[in-house]
Amino acid sequence: MSTMTTTPIPVTVLGLGLMGQALAAAFLRAGHPTTVWNRTAAKAETLLAQGARRADSAGDTTSPLVVLCVSDYRAVREVLESTDLEERILVNLTSGTSTQARATAEYVAERGGTYLDGAILAAPDGIGTADAVILHSGPRPAFDEVEPALRALGNATYLGADHGLSALHDVAVLGLMWSILNGFLQGAALLGTAGVPATAFAPLAAQSAGTVAGWLAGYARQVDEGSYPAPDSTIDTHLAAMEHFVEESETLGVSAELPRLVKALAERAVAQGHGPSGYAALIEQFREKA
Amino acid sequence: MSTMTTTPIPVTVLGLGLMGQALAAAFLRAGHPTTVWNRTAAKAETLLAQGARRADSAGDTTSPLVVLCVSDYRAVREVLESTDLEERILVNLTSGTSTQARATAEYVAERGGTYLDGAILAAPDGIGTADAVILHSGPRPAFDEVEPALRALGNATYLGADHGLSALHDVAVLGLMWSILNGFLQGAALLGTAGVPATAFAPLAAQSAGTVAGWLAGYARQVDEGSYPAPDSTIDTHLAAMEHFVEESETLGVSAELPRLVKALAERAVAQGHGPSGYAALIEQFREKA
Ligand SMILES: NC(=O)c1ccc[n+]([C@@H]2O[C@H](COP(=O)([O-])OP(=O)(O)OC[C@H]3O[C@@H](n4cnc5c(N)ncnc54)[C@H](OP(=O)(O)O)[C@@H]3O)[C@@H](O)[C@H]2O)c1
Ligand SMILES: NC(=O)c1ccc[n+]([C@@H]2O[C@H](COP(=O)([O-])OP(=O)(O)OC[C@H]3O[C@@H](n4cnc5c(N)ncnc54)[C@H](OP(=O)(O)O)[C@@H]3O)[C@@H](O)[C@H]2O)c1
Repeated sequence: MSTMTTTPIPVTVLGLGLMGQALAAAFLRAGHPTTVWNRTAAKAETLLAQGARRADSAGDTTSPLVVLCVSDYRAVREVLESTDLEERILVNLTSGTSTQARATAEYVAERGGTYLDGAILAAPDGIGTADAVILHSGPRPAFDEVEPALRALGNATYLGADHGLSALHDVAVLGLMWSILNGFLQGAALLGTAGVPATAFAPLAAQSAGTVAGWLAGYARQVDEGSYPAPDSTIDTHLAAMEHFVEESETLGVSAELPRLVKALAERAVAQGHGPSGYAALIEQFREKA
Repeated sequence: MSTMTTTPIPVTVLGLGLMGQALAAAFLRAGHPTTVWNRTAAKAETLLAQGARRADSAGDTTSPLVVLCVSDYRAVREVLESTDLEERILVNLTSGTSTQARATAEYVAERGGTYLDGAILAAPDGIGTADAVILHSGPRPAFDEVEPALRALGNATYLGADHGLSALHDVAVLGLMWSILNGFLQGAALLGTAGVPATAFAPLAAQSAGTVAGWLAGYARQVDEGSYPAPDSTIDTHLAAMEHFVEESETLGVSAELPRLVKALAERAVAQGHGPSGYAALIEQFREKA
């Protein structure tokens, strides 16, 4: 088997929840001989009708590539205990932390297998399309070997050898997502007090989010360089507006927790001498254990 | 004077800080006879060289449109005390809260003037370009009357008769902006622990922010309808991943304040029965005084 192989390789999917079923179906559509297993056997039925082979246990499979997708790492360990990992490449797409991913890499290595950790940035109905970004980390040669198969699932992205990278990128992206949604909902709550519907705010919010997304590369350069010049707005200037953000929320009787956190972080940066710096100087507050 | 007028009307700009100077320069470029005044007179020099007329006091002007842009509302009151407002349209572009804007509208009305409140979503160097969104609120006929002049400053947007709307939209948009930047910096701090530079995270972050921006209209509809079906991810599902967000931050020794707030809001929604709802159900947490 090499990256030149055009014949789809045999794969096994362990765990057939909402996501596992979508993964197995995508492998089948791409022509991979696909073995499936789930603790609750009934969830395999639709896939069997689509041409999958049923494994009677998690260990009942010989395919070189095993893809695992269960609820959490407790379930991962339970399933792996009865799986033969010798000379297999295990791709674990279960969500977890970088610490769990690194520990599982050691466990799989002890059992003679090769481990790739992964994180799915998509919903089950996106699986099999180019929109489904799936992050992978672990040994590059193993990724290269199974990449043609992984491409059946979506946009297979390789991050690096450190097994923790997929989980870290996953929470970093999710954290940004929740931050955007929370920022939008805070604004919608404020505007709601004046009778403005959220749908009236949404176009302005989406446009602003797009604008700010365009600034990230520039702020990132400042973060990496550790130098935060402020060509336009200083943190001092931001802080004055943040006071309005807190005051509006408190006066209008909506939650002021998010505004208070926004302001507290900037205040601490100012206390550390970053009043005249640009916003990227706040990285120092996020790096600090608080 | 009507919206059909093509001759640029005389305008006065009070306050020539960084922003006031940019406003006056844009009026001059658009051919408006422009009178300028600043507490510290020296800041008018460049504008005088560009053709502006100097007013000796804030009251020394007869133009039908007066644009005010000073540090804060304390300064607004000080300037207005010596300004003749009778039969003038005052457009106040000073940042403040909706309460301050509404109070100033009453004050200007008592003095026989017409008041429009405004908020500038741009830096001084963007003024005079279509990228400079400037929000306005107050009586529609007054806005219509001065709109041709306001267009010299940027994309003049009218929000409604409630004078508080500009300030509210301003903090709503800024709050979203800070949320995005903070979400990005939290992710950069987490990834930094694994040696990933912020510049490597930025493209993925920008792409994700763009994707999430595209969801806002749909979430907004759910907010307005008060019904939060979850076609893909429920708050229960989000919460499981939020636990990883908190755990990664705590374990890796970066600030966990933002992750803890994200998780606490979702936990409260779950406690109120919204575990099976979609993310938009969190609006109820933001509406609640906490
Ligand atoms: N759904 C999404 O939108 C989405 C998106 C990105 C990432 N993910 C991640 O993908 C993973 C799976 O999600 P899902 O949506 O498929 O969840 P799900 O529908 O709840 O399915 C959970 C799966 O885990 C299995 N499982 C749980 N405990 C087990 C154990 N002790 N031993 C063996 N199997 C066990 C379940 O088997 P039974 O059927 O026997 O209970 C089931 O197959 C999660 O880590 C999730 O975070 C999901
Ligand atoms: N700069 C931006 O990027 C930006 C963007 C959006 C909105 N804004 C808003 O625009 C407003 C002005 O900002 P700026 O950047 O121009 O600030 P600035 O450069 O600090 O200028 C402040 C101005 O306010 C005047 N002022 C302060 N107190 C006064 C008083 N008691 N009486 C009379 N004049 C007084 C100052 O006069 P002196 O020269 O005599 O001190 C000066 O003209 C603020 O509300 C700001 O939030 C600014």
